[in-house]
Order: sequence, then structure tokens, then C-alpha cells
Amino acid sequence: MRQPSIRIVITSPLEPELIERIVAVDPRLDVVYPRDLLPVARYPADHAAPNPRDPEALAAWRSILEPAEILFDFGPRPLVAELASWPQLRWIQATSAGVGQFAARFGLDKSRIVVTTASGVHARPLAEFALMAMLMFGKGAFRLLADQRAHRWERYAGEELAARVVGIVGVGRIGREVARVARGLDARVIGTTRSVAGRPAGDLFLDRLVPTDELDAILGELDFLVLTCPHTPETEGLINAERLALLKPSAVLINLARGAVVDEPALIAALQAGRLAGAALDVVAQEPLPAESPLWDLPNVLISPHSASTAIGENGKITDLFCDNLQRYLEGCPLRNVLDYALLY
Amino acid sequence: MRQPSIRIVITSPLEPELIERIVAVDPRLDVVYPRDLLPVARYPADHAAPNPRDPEALAAWRSILEPAEILFDFGPRPLVAELASWPQLRWIQATSAGVGQFAARFGLDKSRIVVTTASGVHARPLAEFALMAMLMFGKGAFRLLADQRAHRWERYAGEELAARVVGIVGVGRIGREVARVARGLDARVIGTTRSVAGRPAGDLFLDRLVPTDELDAILGELDFLVLTCPHTPETEGLINAERLALLKPSAVLINLARGAVVDEPALIAALQAGRLAGAALDVVAQEPLPAESPLWDLPNVLISPHSASTAIGENGKITDLFCDNLQRYLEGCPLRNVLDYALLY
Repeated sequence: MRQPSIRIVITSPLEPELIERIVAVDPRLDVVYPRDLLPVARYPADHAAPNPRDPEALAAWRSILEPAEILFDFGPRPLVAELASWPQLRWIQATSAGVGQFAARFGLDKSRIVVTTASGVHARPLAEFALMAMLMFGKGAFRLLADQRAHRWERYAGEELAARVVGIVGVGRIGREVARVARGLDARVIGTTRSVAGRPAGDLFLDRLVPTDELDAILGELDFLVLTCPHTPETEGLINAERLALLKPSAVLINLARGAVVDEPALIAALQAGRLAGAALDVVAQEPLPAESPLWDLPNVLISPHSASTAIGENGKITDLFCDNLQRYLEGCPLRNVLDYALLY
Repeated sequence: MRQPSIRIVITSPLEPELIERIVAVDPRLDVVYPRDLLPVARYPADHAAPNPRDPEALAAWRSILEPAEILFDFGPRPLVAELASWPQLRWIQATSAGVGQFAARFGLDKSRIVVTTASGVHARPLAEFALMAMLMFGKGAFRLLADQRAHRWERYAGEELAARVVGIVGVGRIGREVARVARGLDARVIGTTRSVAGRPAGDLFLDRLVPTDELDAILGELDFLVLTCPHTPETEGLINAERLALLKPSAVLINLARGAVVDEPALIAALQAGRLAGAALDVVAQEPLPAESPLWDLPNVLISPHSASTAIGENGKITDLFCDNLQRYLEGCPLRNVLDYALLY
């Protein structure tokens, strides 16, 4: 007697050898990779969502997806709002960490469907980006590059990261990795989390851990303010004009979280007025950043197109996580990285 | 009875509080800081050499220096050639690490005068510069900055430093620190030294240590080639056209050593032809880099005006070293960082 198969649909581009690894997890799996319906990856680890242009393509997607029990990524945007109502669907493995708001917007938080995030996968490249930004600002890379364009050889003294104070808002897996690399260069690191109970600062590579509620009390100490918190109702607009004013004029903001965590007009005003020394932004309020945004041309701003988390090899790590979760799923064990619908991370 | 005093002349700009620390080492010291004859520091830790313009200023310097037993820095350039013949002079504390060639050029290697270098002081800022360069090249910072100037939001995938292969030529204190920070991000690090005997790779934060003689055998493995060797007759022109050709086209050269270690025309040719992915150069053959050098405008080159070693707070570290050496000197103990006139480092 043939065992009932479990349909998995891979809904964003994935390398053939990684699909084979998923297929190899268990013979019961019916892994569908609708290559012809998927966009072509523009770069490694491009999790481009399909966006079917004609009714036939949409119908094709629906017929492939409706029998699915498991999705790898959320699938075509026009169908996301329907997911919560599909009776077969049990579990969606996301390809990024910050999907809480997205899942809530489409009602998944009110459904029986489990979403697992890719939390952890992006911690290292994001920490490297934060470290690069800290070094670029501390060592005057923007001045260096401007001098180079002007063929100007003008010696100067840079800063060392040692004893600089780094504040990390929202010490989850990304924040912990930022703390680790900053500590490796002897920075002093203060972290915040929603709740500090039972989380020893040392385990998080922190010199100090404070509740995010008490953020205002530490802002004046910071040389670098790094945002790694999830976007939740509590963190929306967290870094507003008042909090930006609490930072030293020599401080630099590094946003690895979501654009909505920062009051962007207030940030622009502070940068333009010299009340803040710089910003490295991997995320902005509206993405892509509109061509007319003043952020593009501010001399003390580094813009990254939400790519700091995207690393060659990322798909391999997500596939590792997915295969491990598949095993757990098949064995009826709790999955890793389950999105908490109350906390939205 | 008054004890004979020991004259020390500080011959490059130093902060008053640091001079006070030197004075406080011992009452026998006669510490002279000829403020009016010294150039003004243009930036923190500017070790600008005095360059007396008129005969009176030169005479004033000579009268201050001739009775000196100890110099902090080498003093006015027009007088350096005389130092070896002054009978009182016993010891010069340099403010940089790479002074071997300079000392030899002025005959100090043939004199009884001891030179101590500032080796170790610059290890951290140089390692940070190397790390910044590795992250900037690995994570596509040049592309990011070009996209930003064009107001272009184009997502892409960067590299992680993990498992990248870093080669360090000349693992002294700087190279060891470069290795330490690269290993902190899980790079694989291969180092070279003149002699590997008795130097376990692990103590140097290396995965492998090879004699510099065998450099050619490792060049093809490297993603980053970092030069931290002294400039000696053996290392002059070490990175020539043949060795550059052994590197992968995706490799990046980071020169923290001296410009003379690299065949600069060959480097430029390799960069222009795309046979090398990039270069971060803190040192060049002729400094300041001539305005007409093609290096300024190559899109895959980062030029630093020999300032990567210069950090705010550097003078404090050099003063720590000098005060410790002063104690040793007064007690007749061996000094730290004595320049080896045979090896020239």
C-alpha cells in the first residue's frame, strides 16, 4: 500500500542541488518546484516572489499550491491572502527572519497555519555589515573616499573600536552576533530586549542588558546605535525625534531591523543638521528607497538595498534549517523558529 | 650633591599630559620639549618631523639635541645624518614600527646608538583597517557606494568572511592581529614568516604557517593577500608581476607594509586588466601618491594616505612604551622593541 504523500511546494528560486537535498529527507515527500512559473533569481539567495501576470499563470499556481501541506516561502503575492483559508496547508517555512508583520497582515496569525522564520540564518552577514559600517565611520572611510576622488593625500587619525560604546536594540540572534563581533574588537556593548528576565548579559556577549523600555537612559552613552529588533507595534517609530536628540552628535545609527522602526523624516533632519554623525541603513521606510529621497545624497549615509542579510551560501543555510524542520515535522516534534503570533517574531 | 641629569628631547608633537608622564618617570630626567621649534600637529598622533627653514632654527635644534642622551623620534630631517656622530646620544625611541630602512640610510646601523621601534602600537588600527577592507570588498561596498551615487536600489548577494582564505605575509605583531580578527569571523588564515622555526601556527592565530620563501605555493589559494612584512632587501619588490599572476582574479591585495614591497606598475596593470579584483593600499611607492597616479581613479582600489596605523590615542600607547623603556634604561635592563640592525626590523 502506498503511503499518502506530503506535498511541499518551493515557491521562490532555489538551486537544484538544494531541492535534491529536500527530496532526500523522506520518501513520503512530494516536492514540487514549479520552475516555469518562478522568476529567475537575479543574484544568489534572491527570494523573489512570483508575481503571475495572467489569469492562467495564477490558476496554475493555485492548482499547484492548494494541495500543498507545506510551503517553502509564501508564494505568489496575489495568493497570500488566500493561504489562511486553504484546508491542506499546515506549515510555511519563510526565507527571512522578520515576517511577523507580513504574516499578520494576511491573517495567518488567526489561522492554524504554522510559520517558521529563517531567524539565525542572516545573523552573520548582518553582523558583518554592522561591523563594516562601524569601521567605515570610525576610520573615516567616507572622508578617505572623498579625498581619493579629489586625488588628495591628507593624513589623519581614525578611531579604534576599542572602548567605543555600541548599543543594540533588540538582542535576538542578529543582535547577539553583532555584540560578539564588536566585543572581539573590545567595544563596550549594551543591549536591550523586551524582557531581560533570565537572560544573563554575558551569554549575549554584552557588558550590560537593559529592558527596551529603559532605552532612553542609555542613548546618551552610545557611539553606535544598532537596531536589530523585530518590527512590532511596540517598536514602530521607536527611534523618533526625541530619542534621536538623546544621542550624541558624534553617534552613528545602523538600522538592520525595519525602516518602520525609525521616524525617517526625523532621522533625515538630524543628519542634515549635524545632530547625528551618520547612518548606515539596510532598511528604509519605503523600499525601494524613492529616487527623490534626500538620504541618497547625504554625505554621511550609507544606503544598502536591504541586501546586508543576503549572502552567497544563504540558501544552503535555509535549506539546512528547512530539512531539519522537515524531519521534526515528520516525527511530530516541535519545529525550530516558530513565529510567535502574539509577539510577531 | 646633584645627580647628573639625563637629557631627553621630544622631537615631534606630543600632548602636555603625556610629556608630564615622561617627566614623572624619574627625577634624574631632563625632559626638553622645544614647543616653539616644533610643527603643530595637524591631527592626533601626527608625528610631524621638524623641518627648520632658517640657519638659526637649525642651530637652535643642534644646541638642544647635541647634549641629549635620548631622543623621542628622530628629530629634524636635516640633522638625522649627524645623529650617528654625536657622542652623547645613546637611544632613539621611534614613533613608528617600520624604521629599519630609514635608520640604515642614515648610518645608525653602523653606530652604537640603539633604536627602539613602536612595534605593536599600530597593530590594532592596522588590523581594523585590513578587516574593514576585507568586509568592504567582500560585501560589495564599492558597488553599494556607486549605486548610492546613482540613486539605484539594486539588491545583490555579498560574501561572508567565513571560509575565505586570508594570506598574511610577515606575521609579526600586526600580522598576528590581522589573523586574530579574521579568525574571529571564521576566515582561514595562512601566514608567512622569514623563519617558521619555533613559532607554532596556533599561537599566531593561523591555520597554517609557511616560510616566506614558499609564498608562491600558497598565492593561488588566497582570497585576500595582506602584506604586513617589514621593508628589507629581501621583501623589496616581493609582490612582483609573476607573484601577482599567481593570485586568483577574484583576490584582493591589502598593503599595510611599505610601498616598496610591491611592484606598483605591475599591480596597476593587473588591476586595470581585471587580473586582480581589488586593492586597499595604505602605502604606495611614492608618498604622497602623485596626483597623476592611475591608482586614484581605479574603481576597485581604496587609497589610504599612510594613516591606517594612526589612531586617536596612539600617542598614549607610544608614551606607555617609552616610559616602560625609560625605566628599563635607567635600571640597565634590556629595552623592548630594539631594532635589529641585521634584520632591519
